[in-house]
Amino acid sequence: MKWVDRLLGARIATTEEEDQRVGVWAGVPMLGLDALGSSSYGPEAALTVLIPLGAAASGYALPVVGLITALLIVVFLSYRQTIEAYPNGGGSFTVAYENLGTKAGVFAAAALILDYLLNVAVGISAGVGALVSAVPSLHGHTLALCLAILATITLVNLRGARESGVAWAIPTYLFLASMALVLGLGLFKTVLSGFHPRPVAAPPAPAVATAGAGLWLLVRAFASGCTAMTGVEAVSNGVQAFKEPKVEQAQRTLGVIVAALVGLLVAISLLANAYGIAATNPEKAGYQSVVSMLVGAVVGRGLLYYVTLGSTLTILCLSANTSFAGFPRLARLLANEDFLPHAFGNRGRRLVYSAGILVLAILSGALLIAFGGVTDRLIPLFAIGALSAFTMSQAGMVKRWRREGGDRRRILLNGTGAVCTAVALLVVLAAKFTEGAWITVLLVGVLVWCFWSVRRHYEHVERTTACEEPLNTEPKSPPVVIVPVLRWNLVTSKALRFALSLSDEVEALHVALDDDGEGAIRDQWRRYVEVPLSENDGPKPRLHVVRSPYRRLFGPLLDFLKEVQNRQPDRTVAVVIPELVESRWYQYLLHNQRATVLKAALLLHGGSRVVVINVPWYLEEPRRGI
Amino acid sequence: MKWVDRLLGARIATTEEEDQRVGVWAGVPMLGLDALGSSSYGPEAALTVLIPLGAAASGYALPVVGLITALLIVVFLSYRQTIEAYPNGGGSFTVAYENLGTKAGVFAAAALILDYLLNVAVGISAGVGALVSAVPSLHGHTLALCLAILATITLVNLRGARESGVAWAIPTYLFLASMALVLGLGLFKTVLSGFHPRPVAAPPAPAVATAGAGLWLLVRAFASGCTAMTGVEAVSNGVQAFKEPKVEQAQRTLGVIVAALVGLLVAISLLANAYGIAATNPEKAGYQSVVSMLVGAVVGRGLLYYVTLGSTLTILCLSANTSFAGFPRLARLLANEDFLPHAFGNRGRRLVYSAGILVLAILSGALLIAFGGVTDRLIPLFAIGALSAFTMSQAGMVKRWRREGGDRRRILLNGTGAVCTAVALLVVLAAKFTEGAWITVLLVGVLVWCFWSVRRHYEHVERTTACEEPLNTEPKSPPVVIVPVLRWNLVTSKALRFALSLSDEVEALHVALDDDGEGAIRDQWRRYVEVPLSENDGPKPRLHVVRSPYRRLFGPLLDFLKEVQNRQPDRTVAVVIPELVESRWYQYLLHNQRATVLKAALLLHGGSRVVVINVPWYLEEPRRGI
Repeated sequence: MKWVDRLLGARIATTEEEDQRVGVWAGVPMLGLDALGSSSYGPEAALTVLIPLGAAASGYALPVVGLITALLIVVFLSYRQTIEAYPNGGGSFTVAYENLGTKAGVFAAAALILDYLLNVAVGISAGVGALVSAVPSLHGHTLALCLAILATITLVNLRGARESGVAWAIPTYLFLASMALVLGLGLFKTVLSGFHPRPVAAPPAPAVATAGAGLWLLVRAFASGCTAMTGVEAVSNGVQAFKEPKVEQAQRTLGVIVAALVGLLVAISLLANAYGIAATNPEKAGYQSVVSMLVGAVVGRGLLYYVTLGSTLTILCLSANTSFAGFPRLARLLANEDFLPHAFGNRGRRLVYSAGILVLAILSGALLIAFGGVTDRLIPLFAIGALSAFTMSQAGMVKRWRREGGDRRRILLNGTGAVCTAVALLVVLAAKFTEGAWITVLLVGVLVWCFWSVRRHYEHVERTTACEEPLNTEPKSPPVVIVPVLRWNLVTSKALRFALSLSDEVEALHVALDDDGEGAIRDQWRRYVEVPLSENDGPKPRLHVVRSPYRRLFGPLLDFLKEVQNRQPDRTVAVVIPELVESRWYQYLLHNQRATVLKAALLLHGGSRVVVINVPWYLEEPRRGI
Repeated sequence: MKWVDRLLGARIATTEEEDQRVGVWAGVPMLGLDALGSSSYGPEAALTVLIPLGAAASGYALPVVGLITALLIVVFLSYRQTIEAYPNGGGSFTVAYENLGTKAGVFAAAALILDYLLNVAVGISAGVGALVSAVPSLHGHTLALCLAILATITLVNLRGARESGVAWAIPTYLFLASMALVLGLGLFKTVLSGFHPRPVAAPPAPAVATAGAGLWLLVRAFASGCTAMTGVEAVSNGVQAFKEPKVEQAQRTLGVIVAALVGLLVAISLLANAYGIAATNPEKAGYQSVVSMLVGAVVGRGLLYYVTLGSTLTILCLSANTSFAGFPRLARLLANEDFLPHAFGNRGRRLVYSAGILVLAILSGALLIAFGGVTDRLIPLFAIGALSAFTMSQAGMVKRWRREGGDRRRILLNGTGAVCTAVALLVVLAAKFTEGAWITVLLVGVLVWCFWSVRRHYEHVERTTACEEPLNTEPKSPPVVIVPVLRWNLVTSKALRFALSLSDEVEALHVALDDDGEGAIRDQWRRYVEVPLSENDGPKPRLHVVRSPYRRLFGPLLDFLKEVQNRQPDRTVAVVIPELVESRWYQYLLHNQRATVLKAALLLHGGSRVVVINVPWYLEEPRRGI
C-alpha cells in the first residue's frame, strides 16, 4: 500500500493532532480564500446590475459597496465575539443549535451546506471561465480543467488541514501583494491627478444610459453585491484548527481576512469611479471583467497586469478550498448529533474528516459535470445560504448573551449584526426570488427533511438495540447446523468436520438439478461419510437431497431452512458455507460466486434465528489442516 | 419479481426442454440470418474491389461469385455430413476437438468466437449504417440505434431459443419473398429483352476504368466476396435445438438457408451484369449499395423498392442474432471442457445459456461504442474466423471417417471441402493481412492462451481440492471464539450468547480509539457480563482492549487473531461478527459497513484456521429471541 502513503501522506496518529494546527499565516489561505476571492466578483456583480445607468453607474456603486462594507464590518465584530464564545468551533450550526434550538440549528446547517457546495462549483468554474476567456485555445477543455482543479483541491485536503494552508499560501499572498501594489498605485495616481487620473490602457466607454437610478435598481445592485460577503463565517467554524492560543489566532486571522477584503472592495469601487469604469455585459462579445479593466487602466497591459490577473484567477479557483475546510467539519458536527451518517464523524489517515471531503468533491463534481463546467447561473443562489447562516448565528449569540446575564455591548453588537444580515437576506430573497432563489429555499427544505429522517432512523436503531439487561446466562443449546453440499471434496470435508465440532445435529443439503447429480452425491455421501461414521458413536449427519426443476439453487435451500426452523422452533440454525478462496481477484471470475450470493441471501432473508458460518478453504492450504 | 417474469418470461423447467425446440420454419430465422444477410454484402464487397475495372467489373464478378457459390455448395454438402455425425451439435470446436485433438479444437473455437463477436458488431452497424444513409436525420443517433437493436436482440434471446426464431420469422420471410419477387421479375425481364433489359431507375454510370483485370485484383475480389460464406456453420452448431427428428430438421434447415443464399448470390451477380451495375465508392458522396441500385433498376423506386430495401436492412441488423444462437452454445461446450468459466455452462430461467448471451452483448456493445457504431473497418477481419472454422471442422470429419473405416465418398466430400476452404483461407489471409487480418491472427493467439490458462487453473483447483479420503472422524475440539465488541447493546448480547453456546473459550475484543472508549466498554463489560456470569459455573469470556493510535480497526483485530492462533496452534479460531441488518438498502448508507468489510478482510487474510460466523440482528427482531 505504498502508493497510498505517497498519494495521501503517511498515517498521522491521533496524538499528533497539535502538529496539524495552523497559525495566522496558514490560516488565511486555508479559511480565507472564499472571502478574498469574492472581492473580485462582488463589485462586478453590483456594477453589472447598474449597466443601464451608463457612465453614472460607478458613482451609484459607491454607496452600494459602502453599505456592503459596513455590513461586513458589523459581521466581523459579531463573529469575533462568536469565536471567543465558541473556542471549539462556533459555526452557525453550533451557535443556532445551542441557543435557538434544534430546528434553527438544522436550518442554519442546511443553508450552510448549500452555500459550501455552490461555492466549490461556482468558484472553480468562475476561475476556469476567466482563464478560458484569456486563453481561448483551452475552450474545449473547460470541464476537464474544472475537474482537474477539483481533484487537486480534494487531494491536498485529504492530505491534511495543515498541508492545505501551506499549499495555497503562495498564490494567496501573491494575489494580496499584487493587488495591494496595483490598487495603491492607482489611488496614489488618483490623488496626484486631482481625482482625474488618465488611464494607461483606456477602458471601453460606458454604454449610453438607458434608465435613471431608481431605488429598486440600487436594491438589486446591493443584493448582487452581497456575494462579496460569502465565506466570512469559515473562520468561526474552524477555530479548533488553530494553534494555541486558538481564540486569538482565529480572531487575528479573521481580522486579516476582513481587512483585506474591505480594503479591496473600497479601493476597487473608488478606482472604478475615478477611472470611469462601467461593467460590460458578460453575454456579449468584448466582455472584460472590472478587475481586468481597472488593472489595465492603472498599470497598462504589462507584466504586472498578467501577474495580478493570473493570481486573481488562481484565487477564484482556490476559493473552493474554503468549502473543503468548512463542509467536513460541519458534516462531522451534524453526524455527532445523528443528523448525517456517522461515517462523516470518522477521521481519516491524516486526521481529516475524509468522508466529508470526498462527498463534497463528488457532489460538486456532479454539479460541474451537469452544468458542463459553466455555472454562472448558480451565482444568484449563492449569497442566500451565507446570509441565512449569518443571521441565525448572530441571533443565537444574542440569545446566549441574554441568558448569561446580558452584557449590553455584546447584545447590541450581535443584535445589530443579526438585524442587518436579516434585512440583507430579505432584500436578496426578494430581488432574486424568481431568478432562482426559490431553488435554494426548496433545497434547504429538502435537506432539513433529510436531516430529520436520518436522526429518526438512528434514534429508532438506538432505541431498538439498547440493552440495559445483563447477558442471558441460561445455557443455550448448540445450533442445528446445515451444510450445503455441492459434491465431495476437501472444501466440503473441512466444512463438515467443523460443523460436527459445533453441534450433534448436522444436516447436509444437496440441491440436485437432475438424476445424475443426485446419484453421484448419494454415492459419495455413503462412501465418505456414512461408512466411516458408522464405526463411531458420535453424531451422524444426515444428507437431504432436494430437486430443483427450475435450476434454482437458493430457493430450495431457503425452503429447507424454513422447514428446519419450523421443526425446531427454539433452536438457532447455523448454515455452514464452504468457500474456496482464491489468491487473485481474476480467479473469482472463474468460479460461480455461489457462496457470496448465498451469504447475502441468508443475511437478508434468513431471519433472526439463522446464523451464517463461513468456512474458507484456501487454494494454498496445507492438506493436513483439515 | 414480477417485472423479471414480464421482461424475460416465466421460468421454464428443465423437463420442458422439448417445447423449446424448433423446426425448419423457426430454424431458418434463428440460425440463418447471418448467412442470408451476407448475400447483400458479399457481392457488394467483391464488386467494390473491382471498381477500377469500370463498366467491365460486373462481368469479371461473375466467375468470382461463381467460385464462391461452388465453395458454398461444397461446404453445404460437407456440413450435412457433420450434422448427421454429430446429432448433439457438431460445431467446428466439437469436430476438431474430438478428431484432431485439443489444440486444433481450441484453435477452431477461438476463430469462431472472434467470428461471432465481429458478426454482431458488423451486422448491426451495417444495418444501421444503411438506415442512416436512407434517413439522414437519424445521423446523430447511429450509436444509440445500434445499442437499442443490440439490447432488443439480447432480450429476445434471453427469453429463449424458440422465441428468437419466432420473433424474427416475419422479417426473414418478408425479405426472402420480396427479394424473390424482385430478382425473379428482373431475370424474367432480362430474358424477355434478350439480355439487354432497360432499367426503370437507371443506376449511376460506372466510373471510367483505371486498370485492367489482373489476377491479383480478382483474387482480392474473391477474398472480399468470401464474407458471403460466414454464418453457414451455425446450423451444425445448433442441431440440439431442433425438434425430432433433429438431424433431418437441421439438414433441411441448412438446405433452405444455403439454397436461398446461392439463389440470391447468383441472381444478384447475373442481374448486376445484365443491368450494367458497378459498385460505387462508399467513402464518396452519392454512394448507393448494389442491392439498392439493382432493385431500383428492376422495379423503380416504388413501394416494392422500399419494402425490399427495408427488409434487407432489417435482416442485416438481425444477422447478429446468429451469433446469439451460436456463441452461448460454443461457450458452454468450452466451459464443460474447463476452457471458459463454468458460469457459461449454467442454463438460465428460460433454458438458454444466459451468461454467454450477456457476455456476447457486453463485448459487442463495447466494440460498437469503441467504434462509435461504425465498424466498416472490421469487415476484412471477418471471413477469417469462419473460414478457419470450416477448414478445421472438415479436416476433423475426414479424420473421423478414416478412423471409422473410411467411407470413400464421405472422405472425398469433406476432404474437398477442407482443401477448398483452406485455400480460400490462405487467399483471404494473404490478400487482407496488412488490412487488419493480422489482428485476427493475434487475437486468436490471445484467446487460445486464455483458454489454456483457464483450464490450467481449473485443473489446479480440481487437483488441490480432490478428496478420495473419507471424513476425518476423530472428534475435533470446538473452536476458540473471538467476538469483536463495539459497545454493549442487544446486537452484541445476542452474538456473545451464541458464541458461548459454541465453545467454552470465548474472548471479546474491543479496539479503543481513546481513553473514554476504553473506560466505557470496561465498565459495561463488568456490569453486563462479568457480574451475571460470576454466579454461574459456566465458561467466562474475557475482554481484551487494544488501543489503536492510528484509528485503524481491522489491523489490531487481525493482529489479535494472529496472536490467538499462535497461542492455540491446533485449534480453529471462529470470529463471531455481530451485524445489524436493515430492511431497506438506503439504510446501509447510515451505518459504517464495518461488519461487511471485516468479513471480507477475514476471508482474504484470515488464514485457513479462521472461520467467520455472522450473527445478524434484525431491526424488526422480537427482543425475546436472544
